[in-house]
Parts: sequence; C-alpha cells; structure tokens
Amino acid sequence: MLSWGPWRRREMLTRCTADFSSVMCIPLDDHGFHRGHAVFDTAMLRDGHLYDLEGHIARFFRSAEAARIALPASFSRARVRDLCLATAAAGGVRERGSVRYWLSAGRGGFGLSPAECQPRHTSPSGPLTAQLYVAAIEDGPPTARPEVGWRLVTSGVEAKPPYFATLKSTNYLPNVLCVMDAQAVGCDQGVFLDPDGSVLEGPNMNLAIVAGGELVTPPFDSVLAGRTVQRAMELAEEAVEAGRLPGVSRVRFGKFDLEAAKTAAEVMVLGSGTIVMPVVEWDGEPVGGGAPGPAALALRSAVAADMRPRPGSPLHLPVPYAAYGT
Amino acid sequence: MLSWGPWRRREMLTRCTADFSSVMCIPLDDHGFHRGHAVFDTAMLRDGHLYDLEGHIARFFRSAEAARIALPASFSRARVRDLCLATAAAGGVRERGSVRYWLSAGRGGFGLSPAECQPRHTSPSGPLTAQLYVAAIEDGPPTARPEVGWRLVTSGVEAKPPYFATLKSTNYLPNVLCVMDAQAVGCDQGVFLDPDGSVLEGPNMNLAIVAGGELVTPPFDSVLAGRTVQRAMELAEEAVEAGRLPGVSRVRFGKFDLEAAKTAAEVMVLGSGTIVMPVVEWDGEPVGGGAPGPAALALRSAVAADMRPRPGSPLHLPVPYAAYGT
Repeated sequence: MLSWGPWRRREMLTRCTADFSSVMCIPLDDHGFHRGHAVFDTAMLRDGHLYDLEGHIARFFRSAEAARIALPASFSRARVRDLCLATAAAGGVRERGSVRYWLSAGRGGFGLSPAECQPRHTSPSGPLTAQLYVAAIEDGPPTARPEVGWRLVTSGVEAKPPYFATLKSTNYLPNVLCVMDAQAVGCDQGVFLDPDGSVLEGPNMNLAIVAGGELVTPPFDSVLAGRTVQRAMELAEEAVEAGRLPGVSRVRFGKFDLEAAKTAAEVMVLGSGTIVMPVVEWDGEPVGGGAPGPAALALRSAVAADMRPRPGSPLHLPVPYAAYGT
Repeated sequence: MLSWGPWRRREMLTRCTADFSSVMCIPLDDHGFHRGHAVFDTAMLRDGHLYDLEGHIARFFRSAEAARIALPASFSRARVRDLCLATAAAGGVRERGSVRYWLSAGRGGFGLSPAECQPRHTSPSGPLTAQLYVAAIEDGPPTARPEVGWRLVTSGVEAKPPYFATLKSTNYLPNVLCVMDAQAVGCDQGVFLDPDGSVLEGPNMNLAIVAGGELVTPPFDSVLAGRTVQRAMELAEEAVEAGRLPGVSRVRFGKFDLEAAKTAAEVMVLGSGTIVMPVVEWDGEPVGGGAPGPAALALRSAVAADMRPRPGSPLHLPVPYAAYGT
C-alpha cells in the first residue's frame, strides 16, 4: 500500500518544489495503469475543511467492490478518511482545492488478472495487495460564470454500459472524448445519451431539468450517483417545502429524452467542481429561454452555502494542519 | 516524452536488481493513469527477434488516433519501432518475452481534457505532449497445454460499445472482470456477448469456430482486430489451398451466436500469448466433441512456426543486443 501521506510528501517537498508532481509516481506495473483496474474519488476542500468526504469515501468503497478490488477488513473507510485529511494537511492546501484518491488492484506483472498481483503489506486481517494513492491539489481562483451559463452539445460518443457508468473507475476514455468533442465546437460540456435516446449525464457531472413544475434528474441505474446532485436534490426538497425554489413544486428522479430536455423550463448541470451551473444552449439552440434559470441559480446558492464550513456540521471535516506543522 | 529506453534502463539496472519494476514509474498526474487516456500494444519476442512488431505498431497508431492522442509528425512509427527494439536489447531479453508500450495523452493536472497537459519536449514538427512508455518483459517457460484444451464461460460482464472495443486503450476493466469471472468458476477464459446475442471475443483474444466446413471469426467492427487472428486467417487460407487444414474448405469473417458456437465442429481462441488454443468446454458443456480439434491444432502449429525467426522474413526484426552490450 503506497500512500502519499504526510511524511513522504514532506520529504519530497524539501527535495523538489519546482515540479512536485514529477516525483509523485506510480509503478508502471500497477494494474491501475496498464489495465485500468482502479477506482477513484474526490472531495472538495473549502476553507480548511473537506466537504462530504465520508459520502465520497462510501462511494469509493462501493466502486472498489464493483471493480472487485479486495481490501482486508482493517483497511477501513475511516483509515482512508484519515489519510485524505493528513494529505490535505501536509500539502498545506487551505482555501480552495480538493483531495483525489485512487485504489488500484495492485502491482506485479502485466497481465489481466489481479491474481498475479503481489501483496506488498500484511495487516491484522490479511495481506494487502491493492495500492492507494492520495493527492492534495490546490485550485486557482474560481472561473465559473453562472450568470452566463453553459452551452452543451449532445455527444456522439457511445455511453458506457450501465454497470461501468455507475462505477467510478479510471476507465474514463469515453468521458475524455465527450469533453474533447464539446471543446472542439466551443461548448462547455457534452452529454451522453442512452441507446434508447434517454439523456444520461455529462462526462463528470449530472444533469437535471425543470419541467412541469418538477425538478427531474436521471436515476442512478445508468449514470454515476453524483454526490453533488444527491445533496442538491436534498437541498431542493427543503427549498420546495419552504417555497424557496422558483417554479419547482416537486423533486424526483426520472428519465427524460432530448426533446424533453430541450423544451424544459430550465436545464442545469451539477458536479463537485461545477456546483450547479445553468445551461443556456444545447446543440446550438437556446434552452430554458436562453438565460440562466431562477431554480438553477437558487439551487447553486444553496449548494455553495452548504459547502461552506459551519460549526457542528457532519459534512465538514477540519483538516488537521497543526498536526503537520502547515 | 518519457521512454524506458536503453540508457535509462541500464542505469537503473545497476542501481536496482532485486525489484527492478519498483523504479519503472509513471507520474501520478499522467492522464493515462487518472483518466485512462492511453493506448497500448505489444509484440512477442522469440529467439532474439520481435514478431510482427510493425503490424502491432500500426495498430498502436490507429488506437492513438481513435483515442485522439496527438503526435507530431516527427514521432513516427519507425521511431517507436526503434525504441521497442532498443528496449528489448537493453533488457537483454533473448528467448521468450515481449515488449509492451503505452502512449498516454500527457501529464499535468487531474482534469478530463488533455488540453491541460503540458508539452514536455519540442520536436522539429511541433510540441510533444504525449508520453510513451516501453517495457521489455521476460516470460517464464511455456505453460500452454493445447493437448488438453481450454474451458470457456460466457461472461455476464457487459461488453464495451464497438468504438471502444475496437480501440486498444487501457480501459480494460470489463476485460479484467471477464477473466476474474472465468477464474472464479475454474475456467480458462470468459467470452463477451453482444447485446444481440452474437459471440464477440475474449478479454484479450479472438474466437473462431469451424462449422459447415468453414473457419469463421467475428468481424472487426465490434471486436479488436487481433494481430494473431489476422495472421492465423492468412495462414489458414494458405493451408486450405494446400489441403492441409482438416475439415476446413473456406475461411471467412462472420457473426455467429452462442448456439452456433456450442454446436460447431471446433472452437478455438487466438491471441499473441495463447497462439491458437482449442476449446473443449463452454459453460460446462463439451464443445467440438470435447477434445482438441484437428483444425485448431494444425493452425496452432502453423502460427507457432510463423513466429519462429527465419532468414529474410519481414515479420521478424532482430533485436540489436550487440549495440547495447547485452
């Protein structure tokens, strides 16, 4: 188990400040690289706290199980959480950033099966073959312009089959090609369609529409269960009850096709980096009246507020900078 | 452009002989790792020669194009070929082994789009952002037992959509799960089915059947264009003309379903490591009479003979050991 934990990282920082990433390496024979047998997840860092880290790590462990990456019982979610916090602390990332973490099947050989991977460590509950990597990343200043909104394009890239779409592995080539297609035509993001014509998701974000007074997002049986959209749907429920979500009287999961999306009152994308972004154009046509919608903007404010640390919130874990002298 | 070329490798060999792979590293921020934005290919090494290296490199470049990994014109197929030969030489792999090589979109950042990758080198025809890794690997003694044959199982893993199935990227998680499923039930390999029920391929090998006097393999519009099956089909054509392929009077590409495969006179799998392997059981039922078939065994001999170096063969490139003192 390799971990870019605090001690290692600090030692490296003293040796290499100009291009730190050049010393953050993984072995070439890691099955996560040469076979894509790896899962990953993230958590946003805001003002000295990691947001919804436990929710993301729960998904990380579900992804690992779906990718059949075995972990001994002693390698718990709490341990990954502590390593993420320690890495963020050692990296000294304070205001805006993220932690990213990957779990690969392990090292050894260049074959397909992880049966060839060699255990690198032992633990009280068995040998540990998987490899964990954690990185703390500092973000630049925010560049999002929700008052302008986003332009989407329907992607011609074939969507992943449901089992793989709902599992956050590093097999992101379809996602990469989807965003490259969008950028090639000057759009902000591409959207995958199901073979049956249903709207699925963006390459790293979920979609939702407001139609007939309902806020609707595709169910998680064929798209990734985004942490941001899940939290946004909870906050939307609360806002609807309080009468504070313009034009929305109900919140639900449901499939919709391209026609429904393009004729909806509002379209929005939701993701941890994007938060909630109104969509103003899709395939070159204005959507949602061609201007950022009030429900999207209200939901964006609600989610952004939720990301800000507040006393006693179980969603915000303080980064232990003092313990690492940063 | 990082290359595990001869000089680097030799230096490392002097520093680390016990666990050489531990110093063959790639940067964590390589998009090949964290987004699976990488393609790869291989070539077998037999008796001091690389077999069909140019054919594999041609496919490697087609994969790179399909994955939209840009290369300057000066980074040619010939250059990759020479790096593969040099790496095999520096590694001193002589009898049995392979070279494996990967091309990733590049380094820098942890986002989706390769637009964030930074050029690491310049070349006469433009900046070079992609990263190339080459490894020479020594094989142990052969373990294949064609006289026993293989047992297959139909995989429950969803096959990749055609665009991604025909592109040799490192997004191999479906392939990994397919082989894990097979191993879990004591089989040698799993087989992907199309949603329409057509037999596709194994996770790293092609399939062929002998039925109605025809040798048939699925077309390359939804399976990887395996170099071994391509060469085997050429050799089968020659053998049919010479009347030396038992029970086969025609060689063709064509789709077939599970029922056709299970009732075929013979079933075989074809891949660079496996060469040609007769199949004797599928989903627990005997196929091809439950014993290795004569066409499969004849084709295996023909392909194995073709892999052995012979004077003047354009398929066999001699490894330049002398130039690297190995």
